[in-house]
Amino acid sequence: MPHAHPRPVSQETGSIADRYRATRALTAALIEPLSEADATIQSMEDASPAKWHAAHTTWFWETFLLRDHAPDYALFDEQFPFLFNSYYEAEGDRILRGRRGLITRPTMAEVMDWRAHVDEAMARLLDDPAHGDLIALGIAHEQQHIELLLTDIKHAFSKNPIGPAMWQDAQRASSGQQRGWIDHPGGIARVGQQSVGFAFDNEGPAHRVLLEPFALSRRLVTNGEWGEFIADGGYSDHRLWLSDAWAWLSRCNISRPLYWREEEHFTHTGWRERDADAPVSHISYYEADAFATWAGHRLPTEFEWEAIARGQDAPEESPRFDANAGNQLDEAAPPAPTGTGELFGDVWQFTRSAYLPYPRFAPAPGAVGEYNGKFMAGQWVLKGASCATVRGHSRASYRNFFYPQQRWQFTGLRLAKDN
Amino acid sequence: MPHAHPRPVSQETGSIADRYRATRALTAALIEPLSEADATIQSMEDASPAKWHAAHTTWFWETFLLRDHAPDYALFDEQFPFLFNSYYEAEGDRILRGRRGLITRPTMAEVMDWRAHVDEAMARLLDDPAHGDLIALGIAHEQQHIELLLTDIKHAFSKNPIGPAMWQDAQRASSGQQRGWIDHPGGIARVGQQSVGFAFDNEGPAHRVLLEPFALSRRLVTNGEWGEFIADGGYSDHRLWLSDAWAWLSRCNISRPLYWREEEHFTHTGWRERDADAPVSHISYYEADAFATWAGHRLPTEFEWEAIARGQDAPEESPRFDANAGNQLDEAAPPAPTGTGELFGDVWQFTRSAYLPYPRFAPAPGAVGEYNGKFMAGQWVLKGASCATVRGHSRASYRNFFYPQQRWQFTGLRLAKDN
Amino acid sequence: MPHAHPRPVSQETGSIADRYRATRALTAALIEPLSEADATIQSMEDASPAKWHAAHTTWFWETFLLRDHAPDYALFDEQFPFLFNSYYEAEGDRILRGRRGLITRPTMAEVMDWRAHVDEAMARLLDDPAHGDLIALGIAHEQQHIELLLTDIKHAFSKNPIGPAMWQDAQRASSGQQRGWIDHPGGIARVGQQSVGFAFDNEGPAHRVLLEPFALSRRLVTNGEWGEFIADGGYSDHRLWLSDAWAWLSRCNISRPLYWREEEHFTHTGWRERDADAPVSHISYYEADAFATWAGHRLPTEFEWEAIARGQDAPEESPRFDANAGNQLDEAAPPAPTGTGELFGDVWQFTRSAYLPYPRFAPAPGAVGEYNGKFMAGQWVLKGASCATVRGHSRASYRNFFYPQQRWQFTGLRLAKDN
Amino acid sequence: MPHAHPRPVSQETGSIADRYRATRALTAALIEPLSEADATIQSMEDASPAKWHAAHTTWFWETFLLRDHAPDYALFDEQFPFLFNSYYEAEGDRILRGRRGLITRPTMAEVMDWRAHVDEAMARLLDDPAHGDLIALGIAHEQQHIELLLTDIKHAFSKNPIGPAMWQDAQRASSGQQRGWIDHPGGIARVGQQSVGFAFDNEGPAHRVLLEPFALSRRLVTNGEWGEFIADGGYSDHRLWLSDAWAWLSRCNISRPLYWREEEHFTHTGWRERDADAPVSHISYYEADAFATWAGHRLPTEFEWEAIARGQDAPEESPRFDANAGNQLDEAAPPAPTGTGELFGDVWQFTRSAYLPYPRFAPAPGAVGEYNGKFMAGQWVLKGASCATVRGHSRASYRNFFYPQQRWQFTGLRLAKDN
Repeated sequence: MPHAHPRPVSQETGSIADRYRATRALTAALIEPLSEADATIQSMEDASPAKWHAAHTTWFWETFLLRDHAPDYALFDEQFPFLFNSYYEAEGDRILRGRRGLITRPTMAEVMDWRAHVDEAMARLLDDPAHGDLIALGIAHEQQHIELLLTDIKHAFSKNPIGPAMWQDAQRASSGQQRGWIDHPGGIARVGQQSVGFAFDNEGPAHRVLLEPFALSRRLVTNGEWGEFIADGGYSDHRLWLSDAWAWLSRCNISRPLYWREEEHFTHTGWRERDADAPVSHISYYEADAFATWAGHRLPTEFEWEAIARGQDAPEESPRFDANAGNQLDEAAPPAPTGTGELFGDVWQFTRSAYLPYPRFAPAPGAVGEYNGKFMAGQWVLKGASCATVRGHSRASYRNFFYPQQRWQFTGLRLAKDN
Repeated sequence: MPHAHPRPVSQETGSIADRYRATRALTAALIEPLSEADATIQSMEDASPAKWHAAHTTWFWETFLLRDHAPDYALFDEQFPFLFNSYYEAEGDRILRGRRGLITRPTMAEVMDWRAHVDEAMARLLDDPAHGDLIALGIAHEQQHIELLLTDIKHAFSKNPIGPAMWQDAQRASSGQQRGWIDHPGGIARVGQQSVGFAFDNEGPAHRVLLEPFALSRRLVTNGEWGEFIADGGYSDHRLWLSDAWAWLSRCNISRPLYWREEEHFTHTGWRERDADAPVSHISYYEADAFATWAGHRLPTEFEWEAIARGQDAPEESPRFDANAGNQLDEAAPPAPTGTGELFGDVWQFTRSAYLPYPRFAPAPGAVGEYNGKFMAGQWVLKGASCATVRGHSRASYRNFFYPQQRWQFTGLRLAKDN
Repeated sequence: MPHAHPRPVSQETGSIADRYRATRALTAALIEPLSEADATIQSMEDASPAKWHAAHTTWFWETFLLRDHAPDYALFDEQFPFLFNSYYEAEGDRILRGRRGLITRPTMAEVMDWRAHVDEAMARLLDDPAHGDLIALGIAHEQQHIELLLTDIKHAFSKNPIGPAMWQDAQRASSGQQRGWIDHPGGIARVGQQSVGFAFDNEGPAHRVLLEPFALSRRLVTNGEWGEFIADGGYSDHRLWLSDAWAWLSRCNISRPLYWREEEHFTHTGWRERDADAPVSHISYYEADAFATWAGHRLPTEFEWEAIARGQDAPEESPRFDANAGNQLDEAAPPAPTGTGELFGDVWQFTRSAYLPYPRFAPAPGAVGEYNGKFMAGQWVLKGASCATVRGHSRASYRNFFYPQQRWQFTGLRLAKDN
Repeated sequence: MPHAHPRPVSQETGSIADRYRATRALTAALIEPLSEADATIQSMEDASPAKWHAAHTTWFWETFLLRDHAPDYALFDEQFPFLFNSYYEAEGDRILRGRRGLITRPTMAEVMDWRAHVDEAMARLLDDPAHGDLIALGIAHEQQHIELLLTDIKHAFSKNPIGPAMWQDAQRASSGQQRGWIDHPGGIARVGQQSVGFAFDNEGPAHRVLLEPFALSRRLVTNGEWGEFIADGGYSDHRLWLSDAWAWLSRCNISRPLYWREEEHFTHTGWRERDADAPVSHISYYEADAFATWAGHRLPTEFEWEAIARGQDAPEESPRFDANAGNQLDEAAPPAPTGTGELFGDVWQFTRSAYLPYPRFAPAPGAVGEYNGKFMAGQWVLKGASCATVRGHSRASYRNFFYPQQRWQFTGLRLAKDN
């Protein structure tokens, strides 16, 4: 979340108004194939219903833009803030997170009416440069929820014994990744938000860090390699695991990545045979760390990863979910990591860095200050972007973060080593 | 569940085929106003989704009638038994009870197709007297699920902060109940299943019990009286409560019936002002027992209640949900206790009898033997019938049963005293 | 608990003062071999430390006799009531039950000083007939705690991997039980408290019940028979188990009685080989019920058991713990069921009767009214007495009660059948 | 844990044999005033019984020195490893952590016999330089357990409503701390283990870090300042708290430091009035972070703290528990922070650094490799030393670590700010 970014939004193509409309259209397109029930249920506390995502993103626009900045704007429904505020304490009470799946009313149609109402009101604010930063934040926020919507519905479908599919198409084959290491000489590196373009507040302030010589793998760890780890008894050798990890493993009976069963894994196209060459995904930090230890290497720090990634942002062809592409969801391309050979766009990659504030970091004043800073405890930084990440979110300074046991995102790993 | 009832089904009007069709139609009619999402969610482990009720009742017919007795019948879908078996261990594995709300597929339309498919196949069995008892059981089973469907959806709607309504009509006024006591001289009474008509296996065998002289109140305890109990500090006086009850009260912060808030309570027509003269409902055994102690009286035993009720079964005008009435759900009459003055038809009435087997009781062989007997531990017998009970379930020997802390059924109480 | 027993205490030998002193001495004798640590720890919430039993029984005398009836008596320590009240809500706040094992101070020596102080003050009240009933209750109360002390310390020792022993002697051999059934013709039987002698309030009022013809086994089920039940797959055949039982079995991984491992079981003399002919003990109601079903029989009701037991009370030679025997604990006789052939004195026998109030039952006024009545929910009646029961507690009307999953008492079963 | 420290142990006074004996004597001296029961109980899973500490430290010597390096040494008791291994997976199974309080046998006397036996056998190894590093680790290990023993028994006593005291003396008055800030210009600093003396493996390898200009407070936050934080509504203002912290606060009803009640707090000398000028202690990371935010400052990183602390190690007069002082426990000086004005010796000070491996860190091979590395997830680094820390543990590179909600250590905070 940006608390003072007085600079042109140049990194992204298209005007901010175009990007607003494309993002809103993408949310709608993703919900379109879902039934009213698909869009309403909540399969675990970490996940949210698709309808809730559609509504919460709308609440964000209505609250922080329309209510605060559009003269005479009246709330569409006085009850919606209680239902669709996520975690903004400053914005008042809200429904318990674990009860989001009980909101069968308002219906999806009513939520879509609300979306249309808000879009119409927003149209009058989009071109006002005074709100540029806040609108850029709102777009980034909705794009993050698009990724969550995709991973949350995947989780929900995976819990249904009959394994529904959101896309009907078969998976694409893995691309094949380059082997080898990218060396880095160490020394002082500059990290954090770049001078132009949108960034969240947790990416700044930019600052210098001191690196030791290291190397980062050119490739992501694959399903095939993970199979070797399992075959070698990786999940039953306590020496590979952190203490908390071993307790988690035992308590939850973990013996393979989320969504694996025999030779298959669950995807947006249902149960499919795993591709040995595709990057492994849906693993926890605990598993990533144990694998790295088993492999005789380690995870990179967030700064090592960023130092390598500088200058490699956002290749045109990846990742898949492009908010600039208009409102057509490419139905031929369900999100699935294939091993593009890029740093960005297949899976979020765990680092060994705890998610903590950068020097001189301060959250923005007011409710939007709750966007990132208050989560800086107990979570780990992930870098890159996944096959379910909307395009504008692929940049070297981006810091995604999750708890060490969470697995329902497209999370994987890339090894590092000391030189 | 009957394991040998070679006798005419005379108590109910209409042929068994008519009753089958009326019951099936009633289930469908109740689901009709629900959205796909309303019918899919599960608001607590005790409750089930409406769609699940529609499917589970169909599974019962398909499994115990069609699969076992219809030549050449093929299962509609091989995956459905796993999804829609409730608790019949002998019928194999099934989805965890707490995950019933994740079954967004099959859709409601697919379940309705299944229902039609089963109804068509059942048509060929309905007139075969060889299956009469099993069909009577299936009808009774589906009627029980109709009551659960009504109370489960009420619970689900109550969890939505905007309080959706299933019916739009206002409540009817309470009828006003007679005061006074019905005396009984005590002595040997015959209890348990009557000589004619359908009965569940837990209602038998008929046997004799010895009663002391007692009296049963002519009236149900009302909302107004419950208000006095609260005002008198009933919920904070440990002397009124069983030890388990007091622990439950403290742990769950209980200080009033389920669905109460200030002067209102939640109903099938949304939040409504409470009628002081209407019977109190949605209370637990623990609360019923404490109230009776506070009032200086006690709850009746199941046998005392039955002794009084003999000969009073099933008055024509109550209860409200009549499977014989055809497939029209009377939209003017949402289920709500009004105080009819009858023993049957307002609320299920807690007795002080634990739910235990009658002398010489034996469950039926096979999977249907799991219908009642295996629940004979830790639960309490309730007598009567509620405003949400389908008509055929009002008889003196009927034994409903719930755990002492459960409150989401239309449960209330009628006082008794020693003479 | 007696709420009006104006009758001579004739059943027990010796004066009430003698019985007071013998009971107090027995408590002290049982604690004597324990270390300060043994006497302080609490191995589960159901159990209490030995020191706590020694103190709580003293609190009972100090509170209900000395404080209420001894002029000028001052509490020994103002803090002790908070520490040593068990569950008497009317007597004010108290330490959480699960924290009883944290009371390392007062020390055992301080508790013994308190005991001596109270005994001295009690000496002046013991001969006053005005307090006879309350003193009889206090004696019965302390005798019940002697049994708990024995079973609680057994449980605590069982949790120590090195298996400490409280007695060093080997077990006695089983006596061998008679085979066959005791028939009863049914009809009206009188049950409940007898006309003379002490009884708890839950044993009354005496009343009539109607029995069907039945038979009660002459013998208790043995370890050997239980082994056959296990070998026959008893713990994995869902058809034998109540629904709650099956859930408990699965959740807690139950596959044998408490304290069994391979061919041994844990006893007060440490780990010992099991005697196939000795009565099985440390089973739950759930297990007793499943065994009876497996055996093709059933558990008796509490009234059936009592009807058979009338006239057979308290044979001289059993049970082992005799408060009249003076303060010498017979170290040659650790409590262990051997199969005496008597109804009383080996193991408490589960009935199929829920623990509920008798007709016209009313608890005593005041705090002592909390003794029994408030536990009348969710528990089951056990009859007989165990090898750890003090002698005065063997009578036909005695109603012991536990939750259906509890196993740390000497609990077993005797089969019944319909005639 | 040191995995290659081929250097003289010079930092500590006295020979390694002297330090061994002094440390062992200190453990024994601290246990001496405890009763058998005091030493046996476990008040929460995080804490261990005093007897367990005495035994576990002995197990460490027996396992890693005597078993592995003393020819012909036979284990004192084959059952003790199961009882007294803490968390070394490589050393086999062990009793569940939460059951350590059930080990009433072996008795304290038996454990002391074991200690004497091990000390005698160790005497023959102490002067062998081949084992110097491992012995230094064993001493450091036992010294860490001395601090735990002190904080664990304090916790246990605090749970007893009568508030026992381990020392009888009154607290000493606070010393009064200097005000103001210590400035640091930033730049590259060298951190991690020093060139001489013992260090744990987690303190190395030494490496360089880049610091921004900052200042560290000369003083610890005091009880008086914490009172102002409370009075200002600090515990109810969500804006001050991390998201996990706010959830913890709400779930556990936290509104003040551990051991506070009204104007008092619990100490090793019982309940005492708080000294406003003494450093606050027994706070969690969550609270420390919220306080710093409230104060308009922040916590230091572990490297900032270390950069300031270089050259200030271990002033002679603090901390209080000096293993070199011989086996006399100074009964006049129970551990209590008084505000010495030193960086070391009052309370452990939370940093904002997650506990993670230093670059090129690798755990030692074998079981001792489990000492530190496997805990590098989810915990936070604390610097300094507390009033309960044994003298040899005060050094700039020392990294203590705890979970963010843990409070039973002497934990406090020292503010930092950006310059």
